[in-house]
Amino acid sequence: MPAGGVGSQGALRAANRRLVLDALLESGALIQADLARRTGLSAATVSTIVHDLTAEGLLRIQDTVSSGRRARAVSLRPDAGVAVGIDIGRRHVRVVLADLSHTVLAEEESQAHLGAPASEHIALVRKLFDALLSSTGVERSAVVGVGAGLPGPIDVRDGQVGSASILPEWIGVNAAEALGDALGMPVSVDNDANLGVLAEATWGAARGHRDAVYLKIGTGVGAGLIIGGEPHRGAIGLAGEIGHLTMDENGQVCRCGNRGCLETTASSSIVLDLLARSHGDDLTVADAVAAAHGGDVACRRVIGDVGRHAGVAVANLCNLINPGIIVVGGQLAAAGEVLMDPLREAFARYAIPSVGASTQVTTGSLGRGAQSMGAVALALQSAERHLLAGGSR
Amino acid sequence: MPAGGVGSQGALRAANRRLVLDALLESGALIQADLARRTGLSAATVSTIVHDLTAEGLLRIQDTVSSGRRARAVSLRPDAGVAVGIDIGRRHVRVVLADLSHTVLAEEESQAHLGAPASEHIALVRKLFDALLSSTGVERSAVVGVGAGLPGPIDVRDGQVGSASILPEWIGVNAAEALGDALGMPVSVDNDANLGVLAEATWGAARGHRDAVYLKIGTGVGAGLIIGGEPHRGAIGLAGEIGHLTMDENGQVCRCGNRGCLETTASSSIVLDLLARSHGDDLTVADAVAAAHGGDVACRRVIGDVGRHAGVAVANLCNLINPGIIVVGGQLAAAGEVLMDPLREAFARYAIPSVGASTQVTTGSLGRGAQSMGAVALALQSAERHLLAGGSR
Repeated sequence: MPAGGVGSQGALRAANRRLVLDALLESGALIQADLARRTGLSAATVSTIVHDLTAEGLLRIQDTVSSGRRARAVSLRPDAGVAVGIDIGRRHVRVVLADLSHTVLAEEESQAHLGAPASEHIALVRKLFDALLSSTGVERSAVVGVGAGLPGPIDVRDGQVGSASILPEWIGVNAAEALGDALGMPVSVDNDANLGVLAEATWGAARGHRDAVYLKIGTGVGAGLIIGGEPHRGAIGLAGEIGHLTMDENGQVCRCGNRGCLETTASSSIVLDLLARSHGDDLTVADAVAAAHGGDVACRRVIGDVGRHAGVAVANLCNLINPGIIVVGGQLAAAGEVLMDPLREAFARYAIPSVGASTQVTTGSLGRGAQSMGAVALALQSAERHLLAGGSR
Repeated sequence: MPAGGVGSQGALRAANRRLVLDALLESGALIQADLARRTGLSAATVSTIVHDLTAEGLLRIQDTVSSGRRARAVSLRPDAGVAVGIDIGRRHVRVVLADLSHTVLAEEESQAHLGAPASEHIALVRKLFDALLSSTGVERSAVVGVGAGLPGPIDVRDGQVGSASILPEWIGVNAAEALGDALGMPVSVDNDANLGVLAEATWGAARGHRDAVYLKIGTGVGAGLIIGGEPHRGAIGLAGEIGHLTMDENGQVCRCGNRGCLETTASSSIVLDLLARSHGDDLTVADAVAAAHGGDVACRRVIGDVGRHAGVAVANLCNLINPGIIVVGGQLAAAGEVLMDPLREAFARYAIPSVGASTQVTTGSLGRGAQSMGAVALALQSAERHLLAGGSR
């Protein structure tokens, strides 16, 4: 029960302010009438809260037209603070700065070395973070929240990477603490695929779905799950490890120690490995995708095979949890139908027919930004606590 | 928002009555102080509600001793009504009558013919239902709710069996309507594995787990999922179809139309098929289990192989949704360690190590009663609506 007890006026007012801030943090800007509909609050209650929050310097109101009539668009004041989203991949680090209405103000990305220790990635994050603040002139004190995604599962019991074999570089590191120490402020951390599904469900292709899966095909392969409208992390935070489904008991040895995991046949690393002999060691994933679009037969074949393997795994996933939509992201998703046609074909073949016929299978609408936007969403969750506690800044 | 609006006294009182009834329907009997703790209501509020519900004839209060002190144990009056749970298998039908404190008053079971049309199963349900009422002397008007489990997925879009190939006998039948017509009262219907997880999570081995899976190994194979504390049915109600995971792309043809599904290597039907040549056509699952316990090498081997195949599938399931516990039920679960040792061994081999080490894998504590007790739980959910609406009877 909330402090103050059921029916306490103070608790009710705080809960209603939270509903309004929540809706605005999620949607960016809303017509005041839609704000009432979205929160379930009366028009009069919304009007009072909007008035108070505006007086406190948190909201701005702009005149607009909705359904042919004059209306008031309410949004958080961008200058009420900024949120920072960090996307840490196995081969890259990306940092974005967004205002509270979700507009990305600036972003920086650098390549990282596959297999480099966590400390190198953390140093890179700090460098990009400092560069962003300095290039935009944003004060450190204006940062209301920082979120970060890691390409491995986070064990909820100790905040460390939950599998020694999946992300060995980060073993023994509490990522939230280590990043927080490096940046000098609290950082919330989650698995990158979890951030992908959070972003696509909040702003992208999975919007409106109560049960949604984000499949990230990158250097590794992982899934983020939304079940019953809530992110699902599992008992110890290892839910979504679709890259380690056994597809072939006698297949290649996987970095996780098992054999024939999906990841051994369906990652961007495999694409580069398979193309190395014909296309050389310097080929990048972006090169392979561009060549596939240009008609290169080998690139189309290799990327198509990734789709086919992923489709079998996705069918098995859907037979188990029956989501309404599968959103495919990660760098290979840029291959579009070269990847998706074979993926959908395999999916239809291995899914229970009524599941196959009713599940939407699509690429994400946020592209490579899904991870960093998800990290911004994570950051805004702490921003909300900050705004509720502190009021105007 | 509930009718009456936030803070409305009437809505608040109804919500608080619901909390108290909920806790008693789930737990059977509670010390009044525990009732307050469980519901989060104040002692004074609980006292008023208990007083009112007792005056309405719904509750009874018995003196007891708790922690060495005199205390009041509160429970629903058994004579306030009965709930009926129906377990429909592919080879059997079972009906139980329980009072509102969850005590099974009587039960009836009959064998059914595999492949018989739904109408035969429904006629059998009616016969057992009538026989139970007559043998116990319970009036039809005392039945406050009826729940039933079917051995196939229910499509939430139309209430029909969600896969033509999984349960062909029931295609085109709305099970809730057909059973309701046969019994002359509303019937709630769910998949049998969903009822199994509901029962084991409410009263059995999975109690206290927010993420739990019930694996039913019967004539068919299915799973019931509790995710984030709530039953998970999926976008169209087909979640949990673990029997149709592809384990071997080139394996036996499955009744679902695919090849190498788990069900083609890990059901009680397969056990009987494999033992037919050595042990004859008349062997039952109970016979095979008894023989295995008696040391029969072939029965131990065949049941162990079912465990091994199921363990691989369960590992894949756990890599995807990372539940805290897997509860194994269905008729073969009676084989105990003959089934479970190979199952756990395969599970440990195919699960991500930290998932393998942290997931509890056990047989259910309710045995074959899990399905019918789950059906009673489903019935009590409608009973709750009935009690809230009608008060005393």
